[in-house]
Amino acid sequence: MTGPLFLRDSTAMTTPQTLPSPTMPSDAGQQAIPDVQSRTDVRKVAIDRVGVKGIRYPITVATLEGGCETVDATVNMYVSLPPERKGTHMSRFLELLNDFRDGLTPDRMIELSQRIRNTLDAACAHVEMSFSYFIQKRAPATGKAGLMDYKVRMICDASDEGDMFQLGVTAPATSLCPCSKEISAYGAHNQRCLISADVRTNGMVWIEELVELIESAASCPVYSVLKRPDEKVVTEQAYDNPKFVEDIVRDLAHTLDAESRIDWYRIHSENFESIHSHNAYAEVERDKLRDRDGADQ
Amino acid sequence: MTGPLFLRDSTAMTTPQTLPSPTMPSDAGQQAIPDVQSRTDVRKVAIDRVGVKGIRYPITVATLEGGCETVDATVNMYVSLPPERKGTHMSRFLELLNDFRDGLTPDRMIELSQRIRNTLDAACAHVEMSFSYFIQKRAPATGKAGLMDYKVRMICDASDEGDMFQLGVTAPATSLCPCSKEISAYGAHNQRCLISADVRTNGMVWIEELVELIESAASCPVYSVLKRPDEKVVTEQAYDNPKFVEDIVRDLAHTLDAESRIDWYRIHSENFESIHSHNAYAEVERDKLRDRDGADQ
Amino acid sequence: MTGPLFLRDSTAMTTPQTLPSPTMPSDAGQQAIPDVQSRTDVRKVAIDRVGVKGIRYPITVATLEGGCETVDATVNMYVSLPPERKGTHMSRFLELLNDFRDGLTPDRMIELSQRIRNTLDAACAHVEMSFSYFIQKRAPATGKAGLMDYKVRMICDASDEGDMFQLGVTAPATSLCPCSKEISAYGAHNQRCLISADVRTNGMVWIEELVELIESAASCPVYSVLKRPDEKVVTEQAYDNPKFVEDIVRDLAHTLDAESRIDWYRIHSENFESIHSHNAYAEVERDKLRDRDGADQ
Amino acid sequence: MTGPLFLRDSTAMTTPQTLPSPTMPSDAGQQAIPDVQSRTDVRKVAIDRVGVKGIRYPITVATLEGGCETVDATVNMYVSLPPERKGTHMSRFLELLNDFRDGLTPDRMIELSQRIRNTLDAACAHVEMSFSYFIQKRAPATGKAGLMDYKVRMICDASDEGDMFQLGVTAPATSLCPCSKEISAYGAHNQRCLISADVRTNGMVWIEELVELIESAASCPVYSVLKRPDEKVVTEQAYDNPKFVEDIVRDLAHTLDAESRIDWYRIHSENFESIHSHNAYAEVERDKLRDRDGADQ
Repeated sequence: MTGPLFLRDSTAMTTPQTLPSPTMPSDAGQQAIPDVQSRTDVRKVAIDRVGVKGIRYPITVATLEGGCETVDATVNMYVSLPPERKGTHMSRFLELLNDFRDGLTPDRMIELSQRIRNTLDAACAHVEMSFSYFIQKRAPATGKAGLMDYKVRMICDASDEGDMFQLGVTAPATSLCPCSKEISAYGAHNQRCLISADVRTNGMVWIEELVELIESAASCPVYSVLKRPDEKVVTEQAYDNPKFVEDIVRDLAHTLDAESRIDWYRIHSENFESIHSHNAYAEVERDKLRDRDGADQ
Repeated sequence: MTGPLFLRDSTAMTTPQTLPSPTMPSDAGQQAIPDVQSRTDVRKVAIDRVGVKGIRYPITVATLEGGCETVDATVNMYVSLPPERKGTHMSRFLELLNDFRDGLTPDRMIELSQRIRNTLDAACAHVEMSFSYFIQKRAPATGKAGLMDYKVRMICDASDEGDMFQLGVTAPATSLCPCSKEISAYGAHNQRCLISADVRTNGMVWIEELVELIESAASCPVYSVLKRPDEKVVTEQAYDNPKFVEDIVRDLAHTLDAESRIDWYRIHSENFESIHSHNAYAEVERDKLRDRDGADQ
Repeated sequence: MTGPLFLRDSTAMTTPQTLPSPTMPSDAGQQAIPDVQSRTDVRKVAIDRVGVKGIRYPITVATLEGGCETVDATVNMYVSLPPERKGTHMSRFLELLNDFRDGLTPDRMIELSQRIRNTLDAACAHVEMSFSYFIQKRAPATGKAGLMDYKVRMICDASDEGDMFQLGVTAPATSLCPCSKEISAYGAHNQRCLISADVRTNGMVWIEELVELIESAASCPVYSVLKRPDEKVVTEQAYDNPKFVEDIVRDLAHTLDAESRIDWYRIHSENFESIHSHNAYAEVERDKLRDRDGADQ
Repeated sequence: MTGPLFLRDSTAMTTPQTLPSPTMPSDAGQQAIPDVQSRTDVRKVAIDRVGVKGIRYPITVATLEGGCETVDATVNMYVSLPPERKGTHMSRFLELLNDFRDGLTPDRMIELSQRIRNTLDAACAHVEMSFSYFIQKRAPATGKAGLMDYKVRMICDASDEGDMFQLGVTAPATSLCPCSKEISAYGAHNQRCLISADVRTNGMVWIEELVELIESAASCPVYSVLKRPDEKVVTEQAYDNPKFVEDIVRDLAHTLDAESRIDWYRIHSENFESIHSHNAYAEVERDKLRDRDGADQ
């Protein structure tokens, strides 16, 4: 079958912008196979991010208590691509990820981003991971232990201009409406909410610490195991501590403003209103460094 | 390029179970193109359901008030396939669906299922549609109007043994915990829940009717627009009407037992507990005809 | 029951940052009900966005052909909140949305955003809508008509600094891998991809136009109804037109660069690789006005 | 505050179906707190399933190779509830789950279901778990290792009538269309598909074994890491092995028919067609024991 030669010609016709690379790649054992991605591109369009998305991968994360926890992460890994290069080499992202299965800390994630950048010869690398993280939590009255799951995000950028690491946590909690409480003869609508904080720091902040900061901003934290004495405590605590979605983000902003290790944050709360089929939402972003620089001038 | 002949040979080699059909299809204008699906299969495996899944399609649904509403449906359409037939003709499902864009009622959905069955020469056809359906609802105190969205499912089976039509509705509502209310000095945890009812009937039951039956089983319905006087009403109504997830499905079962047009139902409620990150769930299924037949014996 | 008075006191104790508003609200018929949201807040935290999220609502959108199409939209509506104000009035968002059910065009969406801003007395309003939009498309050989669904996003910001309107479309398409084609004796892996373009414009760009621009960048468009002669055409067209995910975004960037009505765009493609369980992804963002301003200096 | 007494009265008024239990519960340390769930219900509605849904929990699963793997499971746990009992005790599900964190095998899952049944004094218990499971897989030409993720489901029923355990796996794979290959001069549309098999067995079947059986039914398996020589292999293998969605489920049915440890199966494949925005789907269910019993008669 003479197809391949013919086909290659037809390729050249339909994608005339791609010229054969002057130097063919020389990967060991792959010499006979053309490396299409390494060719030169003449369209003059730089690509901000190109790579692999939606990889599921087990990662081992260090815990505050000195142990480690294996999590089931969803991973995206990208590099920037200069205008003249035809394509990146997707399989190398996966090969590099394999080297970082064990013991992923913020430091190691920066190292992964830098190795991606070097291996793929890119100006910038960008890595995102999200996973459920489990923390043991004791019920407020009986002390019964249960595991709570929190959504965690880690984002890392590596480039000539320096590295950026961002940690994010989403925690479920209880919110109880101050308006409903005040205007009603008894009761108050309350609901599960999801409170999120993404932070950039100048020192190590553990997932466990960020969870605590977030939960302190709610009407009441939620728990995995609650016996009746515990249920009494959380019901009354929420009622004693009513908060609009606005109050939650403001109280959390106050808390993060006071934490000197945090330079930048973006926080939001989404409350799954028990009296509506839509949600209440509020969001605050703050760059403390910029605010301070502005104040200095 | 002599590819096609060569390719046909290689196909035959790799899938020896497929024999050429003795009679080639004669679709107008397609005579030169082989109809692979119509060939004979020798594996002797009947297929319960084969077809197209996840089609998005706008459908016009008749409303209780005599008008109609255009909905954005997700549609699955399947037929059974006897052991000797190689494949079904997927494009015909889509062509038939095109004929039913306007005015989809239960009658018309049965008609669609029967036409699929006939066109594809199948023993059984099975059609599923799900969509959001909007109903205007007035706030309990101020009467302010707003649109509520409900999830609706329609399922139809057509076969020699007769046709089956099943209507399903999922409605959001408020549930308030009787235990939390009773054991606490004040307040009670409450939350949004999703209550579902799927029913088979011996007479027309409108979506609007099923929504009402479902909402009557909750601690309180939810609304789109609530002003402060309304918020006071729903807060107090939920507190006056505490229900476990078990109570919700039992009260709904009672209501559906009393509705003579309904022969069979499966109901469930999922409550997004405001004090946990997991949900409470209860489910009841009942076949009234079978129960009655059993009682008759 | 003397609860309410006691409860109101306990509220004041647990949220000391909230002072009673000097002027009580005077909504008709609500005089006896306190307006908690209108009170003064002393935490000094401005909120970037607060409002309602995840509303499902039917909207009528004008089509290129001069008709209109009812779509099932998911809507988010937010305002900014200054530090001294305790809360926004969530129900007013829904009331305003009700006024815009019929005939939503970009102009009308800007009008909605401005009315939200005025009604809620806010510096900025932000409205997001996303929905499935159906366009009739004919198969390439037989001309059979079918409806294709596209995901559409509309975002509008209204503030003192002017209004911003952004249109986004995500279209499914076929991508065929140039590397797989070139290195293999026959065949080439191909897959469904989702190509997205979000644009800001200086003139009206219709959804239908943006769909066409997007689809021209793929190896081949996808269709709803394909008969065998059509399937032959799309199979061969994709094979004749292989594209990496990088090629798709570059070709789309070229197309959008040449469209003078578009000032800014962010585009990406996600390819659901048929040979992997993860996806290939590429993204380009470009601000033509900024680039031109930079070139002028 | 005298509220609680009053409230208890109002509860009784609004839910007259619930009578106080003659024997109050005597949980240690909870004597003063009423046990609402243990009361008697007079509505005479038995509940098929009631319990907790959507729990996220880390579980350790035994692997074929003799090791173990920590997975991030989503867990649902239900019991049946007789008509006369008011409610179940939700927190006990979570407490029991805590006892099974380490080393979950089919045997242990049956043990968990039985302990739930005993602890909650129920006729039936039903436990469902789903999680991503990672298996190392080598690329077909270079032998490069990568981790593939598979979706796994485990379902267990425990009752007087005996226990049922069901294992399910969903694996991604490549499907290549025989019709497209045969009618086209070159190329053939192919796409990622998700092939699922749920089985009931009379002997231990490992997840790894079920994955292999499933993947053998596709046009070609998918891989995590593929270098160019591997990409050539999988491209050509898929082209040499075209399969309709019907072929995939039939070939898998044949394979499972021949596996004597499997008594019952339900299999399906969903193919994300690269030429459409909808999917092709086929499904087969077979009860070998029933078929054999029928043949014996």
